[in-house]
Amino acid sequence: MTAHRIAMLGTGLIGDFYTAALNRGRTKDTVELVYSRSEERGAAFRERWGVPRSTTSLEAACADPDIDTVVIGLPNDMHEEAVRLAAENGKAVLCTKPLGRTAAEAKRMLDIVEEHGVFAGYLEDLVYTPKTLTAVKSVQDGALGDVLWVRSRETHPGPHSAWFWDEKKAGGGVIVDLGCHCIAICRNFVGKGNRPVEVFCWKDTLVHPISADDHAVALIRFESGAIGQFEVSWAFRGGLDLRDEVQGTEGTIWLNHFLRTGFDMFTTGKSAGYVAEKAETTSGWLFPVGDEVTELGYLDMFTDMFDSMDAGTRPQESFYDGYVVNAIIDACYASAQSGAWAPVEIEDWRGGTTPRISRSPELHEGHAVIKREILPDGRTKVLFQHRETGEILETVGQPG
Amino acid sequence: MTAHRIAMLGTGLIGDFYTAALNRGRTKDTVELVYSRSEERGAAFRERWGVPRSTTSLEAACADPDIDTVVIGLPNDMHEEAVRLAAENGKAVLCTKPLGRTAAEAKRMLDIVEEHGVFAGYLEDLVYTPKTLTAVKSVQDGALGDVLWVRSRETHPGPHSAWFWDEKKAGGGVIVDLGCHCIAICRNFVGKGNRPVEVFCWKDTLVHPISADDHAVALIRFESGAIGQFEVSWAFRGGLDLRDEVQGTEGTIWLNHFLRTGFDMFTTGKSAGYVAEKAETTSGWLFPVGDEVTELGYLDMFTDMFDSMDAGTRPQESFYDGYVVNAIIDACYASAQSGAWAPVEIEDWRGGTTPRISRSPELHEGHAVIKREILPDGRTKVLFQHRETGEILETVGQPG
Amino acid sequence: MTAHRIAMLGTGLIGDFYTAALNRGRTKDTVELVYSRSEERGAAFRERWGVPRSTTSLEAACADPDIDTVVIGLPNDMHEEAVRLAAENGKAVLCTKPLGRTAAEAKRMLDIVEEHGVFAGYLEDLVYTPKTLTAVKSVQDGALGDVLWVRSRETHPGPHSAWFWDEKKAGGGVIVDLGCHCIAICRNFVGKGNRPVEVFCWKDTLVHPISADDHAVALIRFESGAIGQFEVSWAFRGGLDLRDEVQGTEGTIWLNHFLRTGFDMFTTGKSAGYVAEKAETTSGWLFPVGDEVTELGYLDMFTDMFDSMDAGTRPQESFYDGYVVNAIIDACYASAQSGAWAPVEIEDWRGGTTPRISRSPELHEGHAVIKREILPDGRTKVLFQHRETGEILETVGQPG
Amino acid sequence: MTAHRIAMLGTGLIGDFYTAALNRGRTKDTVELVYSRSEERGAAFRERWGVPRSTTSLEAACADPDIDTVVIGLPNDMHEEAVRLAAENGKAVLCTKPLGRTAAEAKRMLDIVEEHGVFAGYLEDLVYTPKTLTAVKSVQDGALGDVLWVRSRETHPGPHSAWFWDEKKAGGGVIVDLGCHCIAICRNFVGKGNRPVEVFCWKDTLVHPISADDHAVALIRFESGAIGQFEVSWAFRGGLDLRDEVQGTEGTIWLNHFLRTGFDMFTTGKSAGYVAEKAETTSGWLFPVGDEVTELGYLDMFTDMFDSMDAGTRPQESFYDGYVVNAIIDACYASAQSGAWAPVEIEDWRGGTTPRISRSPELHEGHAVIKREILPDGRTKVLFQHRETGEILETVGQPG
Repeated sequence: MTAHRIAMLGTGLIGDFYTAALNRGRTKDTVELVYSRSEERGAAFRERWGVPRSTTSLEAACADPDIDTVVIGLPNDMHEEAVRLAAENGKAVLCTKPLGRTAAEAKRMLDIVEEHGVFAGYLEDLVYTPKTLTAVKSVQDGALGDVLWVRSRETHPGPHSAWFWDEKKAGGGVIVDLGCHCIAICRNFVGKGNRPVEVFCWKDTLVHPISADDHAVALIRFESGAIGQFEVSWAFRGGLDLRDEVQGTEGTIWLNHFLRTGFDMFTTGKSAGYVAEKAETTSGWLFPVGDEVTELGYLDMFTDMFDSMDAGTRPQESFYDGYVVNAIIDACYASAQSGAWAPVEIEDWRGGTTPRISRSPELHEGHAVIKREILPDGRTKVLFQHRETGEILETVGQPG
Repeated sequence: MTAHRIAMLGTGLIGDFYTAALNRGRTKDTVELVYSRSEERGAAFRERWGVPRSTTSLEAACADPDIDTVVIGLPNDMHEEAVRLAAENGKAVLCTKPLGRTAAEAKRMLDIVEEHGVFAGYLEDLVYTPKTLTAVKSVQDGALGDVLWVRSRETHPGPHSAWFWDEKKAGGGVIVDLGCHCIAICRNFVGKGNRPVEVFCWKDTLVHPISADDHAVALIRFESGAIGQFEVSWAFRGGLDLRDEVQGTEGTIWLNHFLRTGFDMFTTGKSAGYVAEKAETTSGWLFPVGDEVTELGYLDMFTDMFDSMDAGTRPQESFYDGYVVNAIIDACYASAQSGAWAPVEIEDWRGGTTPRISRSPELHEGHAVIKREILPDGRTKVLFQHRETGEILETVGQPG
Repeated sequence: MTAHRIAMLGTGLIGDFYTAALNRGRTKDTVELVYSRSEERGAAFRERWGVPRSTTSLEAACADPDIDTVVIGLPNDMHEEAVRLAAENGKAVLCTKPLGRTAAEAKRMLDIVEEHGVFAGYLEDLVYTPKTLTAVKSVQDGALGDVLWVRSRETHPGPHSAWFWDEKKAGGGVIVDLGCHCIAICRNFVGKGNRPVEVFCWKDTLVHPISADDHAVALIRFESGAIGQFEVSWAFRGGLDLRDEVQGTEGTIWLNHFLRTGFDMFTTGKSAGYVAEKAETTSGWLFPVGDEVTELGYLDMFTDMFDSMDAGTRPQESFYDGYVVNAIIDACYASAQSGAWAPVEIEDWRGGTTPRISRSPELHEGHAVIKREILPDGRTKVLFQHRETGEILETVGQPG
Repeated sequence: MTAHRIAMLGTGLIGDFYTAALNRGRTKDTVELVYSRSEERGAAFRERWGVPRSTTSLEAACADPDIDTVVIGLPNDMHEEAVRLAAENGKAVLCTKPLGRTAAEAKRMLDIVEEHGVFAGYLEDLVYTPKTLTAVKSVQDGALGDVLWVRSRETHPGPHSAWFWDEKKAGGGVIVDLGCHCIAICRNFVGKGNRPVEVFCWKDTLVHPISADDHAVALIRFESGAIGQFEVSWAFRGGLDLRDEVQGTEGTIWLNHFLRTGFDMFTTGKSAGYVAEKAETTSGWLFPVGDEVTELGYLDMFTDMFDSMDAGTRPQESFYDGYVVNAIIDACYASAQSGAWAPVEIEDWRGGTTPRISRSPELHEGHAVIKREILPDGRTKVLFQHRETGEILETVGQPG
């Protein structure tokens, strides 16, 4: 197992979370260098996280000979340049979400890293939360049968930095900022090989004095017939709401990642302190999580990235996945514009085909069974569709 | 306070629930007569609930001189006739949900009762659950500010009687059966006077061998800009999932009516019995409710109906509300057909107009404030949009 | 079914709750008369609840010819006199909890009502909550096997009226005020016929400047070997914490009656109002209940009382039950004094005997089986105690 | 930071959990050697976890020159010998819980490691769960004011290996096996310097054919007046129930570590697999955790151990803590025997003294305030004890 030497690009909230995760535990990988446009913020970051060196030159950071891996935690409009610089210098590159502002931009980044043959990971932390990893595995193992519907919801009171609110820098509003997480979660549950076919999206700017969207709901129709649904808002009051639901033919999963995780605290607030990301209050009933860095997936994400890098395999989330997410986001904006379903345009679908959710019903004397119920008296009621007339009929049989 | 004498039409599950509610507690109102096509089922119902008389004639039940109130718990295709008979005989009429199979049918029923001047209540129990009544009052009192989004979800493993699955008798599939509840809930939270403008709906038949829809998700855009969202399924595994969420500019509400109400039971199942409506198992972790008849709203619903009847006022849910719900359901089917937003056609809108969700932002030196945050060091960060350039900027001020 | 005419004694919080319950729904029973020492409070109560008459004479209230039922909602030191007056006037009497300040006082009240042959109900609302009624029935039906342990916890920030805090008037502190509820709950779950044998109790005055106990934990050992455990506090921060747990040989039940019932609300608090009994805040995350009067059991309690009165049967909670509860409370104080188990002294045990929790273990080749487990590979591991050596051994058998 | 080379003693469930934790992530510490009495189990363990070497000699494992740290995951009756061997060989020693079977045994182990000056950590994983670490920090920061009461509950259907059920090998029953966790949790919340003064304990053998205790409840009175309460059972049905509660003068904390952590799954069970430690079913509603190794504290525990070792500091849980826990367990058995409070005998208390929970009440015109309440009309009600008469009085003041 190699010990990696990392350059961190960016000193904002995401750079803090990434470095907290990389410093956590007894890991051998180390952040050796940090890039910030501002010398002052670079120095503060060094101090905060015990990073040896900082630079204000993006080029220098990406070309540094002591570094083998570049982690991009920059605003969206700077991803492409950073990816290009890192790839040209032969560095492994790990890029925060979303990959691009548009599918076209994401596709160029994908092409760059593939041309240079460098390892490229897409830092979509929320598919790496311990709950999500376990839940996805259960779904893959068949515990839910065929997946019918996935809901992913991420809402909070809005991001901290100015650039998120600026459509040009960010590439859009809340759909870009939070929708990208939800889309990745939906894809993991319906299966990465399940092609996203078309999208319906509602968006609006309901609360903030901005031109970008601050609310959206979208439906993604996958090739199997399954529906991915996301709900995003920058005006949720109550903290950071991160919930997923999966409904399948044989079961259901409900995940609550943040506001209800078995940790309830009431305090009169005579002593106040940091509670949790995007917490709104420091008194009353509060819902901290045990360990944010773990619960938000950062730890398992970097483990997968470096383990994959060492093993020469693909990480769970690659640049290709980032590109697919951007293609779905593009379709969201197109649909919100047209008021109708919009096709998802993917130039280079690598996932194969997925059959329609299976519908070969059980038969009852040659008729398709709709439902079987055990009555309180022990007898079984069968609802079925008559094979010829199409009528819905019922019959009650003997116990057993 | 008058003691009412009631004829119950129908002896299915809903007739049982209604009669359980009407018999509950120390009430003075009594079910005196039950109608069923089948003499046997009528007799069993009399026995089960202590009802004095039964009849197999719908006409006789509706014309009975000892009766002042007719409660309709019949399949959807029999509502119109029953309403007409009751109204012509001058009886108060309380009709189960949905009111009609289409808006046109519902409108005819509304016209009949208004012509005959009889009291007419729409038995939409789920807006009368104790939680919903309390939550709606909190929202009306302003606890959530302006309502932005309402989610209402009702899913279960499918209805018990054959006619529900028959598009012609029911007027559709799961949208008609369960969507009608969700629509009523959304309307109560966004305000009954908030006109439903247009609808987007996805529906599919994913699991059952039927022609009707067994899954649907819809968005209802109201005049204020608020969105009502419903999710319905006849293939949910795990019991009866009844949850609502409301998000407003000043708060949020989460309601779980059935599967998580503070009553958790694990049993090895050596003794098995009735657990709850649509429960799927009798061992393992089970989630009963304290009292289904109360929790599902039946008790408070009938109290409102008879109190309104006595007081000569409108109940919370009237035939007009039933008609509006049907108009929204019609728009759902139209949208699912067209793949685009469909307008909600209401002939006779009685709710007035509702202004757009207010957006007069706080100003910071003449610029619109996007967000204010208190930093860990006590200083306040203000994100704002520059009034001339439109740029998003931030400034950090002194504590306090 | 008779329509009862009720005199309400007392106009405090409990009188309000009782009258709210008696007025609820379409009931025929009516509060006709209210007694308060203060003419002003009597008048306010009449106004508040639409009660026709008030009086400042306890004697007059209990002797009123228009009244058939007296409900006692007075401070503990006035129960005995009120019971005596009501009984002597031949009225049915329903008394709030605890019945007496001591077992001796409770026994005198029991004797009075039995001598006069009047109906006497013990208004222990918390065994009548919808959840408790359903849970007790499940336990009686055997869903949990033999009950091993019951925990009942009631804590809040302390009562509203001065007399509760006054040892002489109340008969003690938090053990008397809240412990009486918990004891009744434990008894319902282990079975009313399961004799309470002895008690261990810790109490302390940790927070308030009073001589009475403001915290206590107690263990009640029942004849079957089952343990009832209660935890009470007048210094809980966070609202009204009402939770019960039952553990049996075949299952477990967890009840949360108040702070987590599937109703979560966050509000910034720009609009404040009544939230729930003993709620501490009006902003942040709040946990209202759907309908307090129902959830706290008042509705079902009065239904049982009047139905039993009409049917000439015993209500679920009688004066005898109140007496047993007082006997257990007396033992709590004795144990807290001695620091050791104290016997529960009941003069007149009417519950028969209960056998020890059954312990006839399954046998494996003649040895007592301790545990059977299915291993991941499908084989069964059996842990058993060797019948002769007493050694604990294990064996792994073939699948199936 | 040093890379440690570890010998794992024992190949049971706990050895598996420890090694899973030590192998997790990108850590530099490695398990190099495993000891088992059985060559076969040693080989299986090597294979299972990628451990290079195994031995059947305890002496060899403890003396191995390539090893610097010995981790003891053996039955309780082998701890002392293993500790002695490791200490004599100058190895750092990390011992599973409980440290000894009795306080005397634990004290000898403490003395051995102190004599030899080796690093000695007590592997009490449950105080290292992410939730507990965060909660303990909140309590230390004062969020709950003075701690009044801590409840720690651990119950499950009983341990897997035969020796746990054997009083002589284990040193007792469920109190030793699970109580030791709960005691450590209580101590962390009330403060390690808060001396445990006396204990009351009920224990019984209610379900299993064994001589050891399978159920117990105990109260630990600490010097401050705070009460630690634990509940343990080997006959809980429903999985692994791990919950803690802390009540303080300014707040409360509720932790649920396992059965309700925001991960709910329903499955019909057509596909079955491993769900979670001590899960009882593989269908119906299941409650997996995201990542057991993390949620149960193993990860953060070893990080603290090795970081402390490298830094030359004491870990959060040392052998001294293990000794104190054993002293409290001894007192539990003494109290269960005597039926009264038993003193906790600690030869060598190192924690200093803790004052009684503070009770200097707020004054109202010279009288001690019991409670202040804001009435619905905005006025403030003050309950106070008259400084001379001792009477409890109330007064209602003006708003504000």
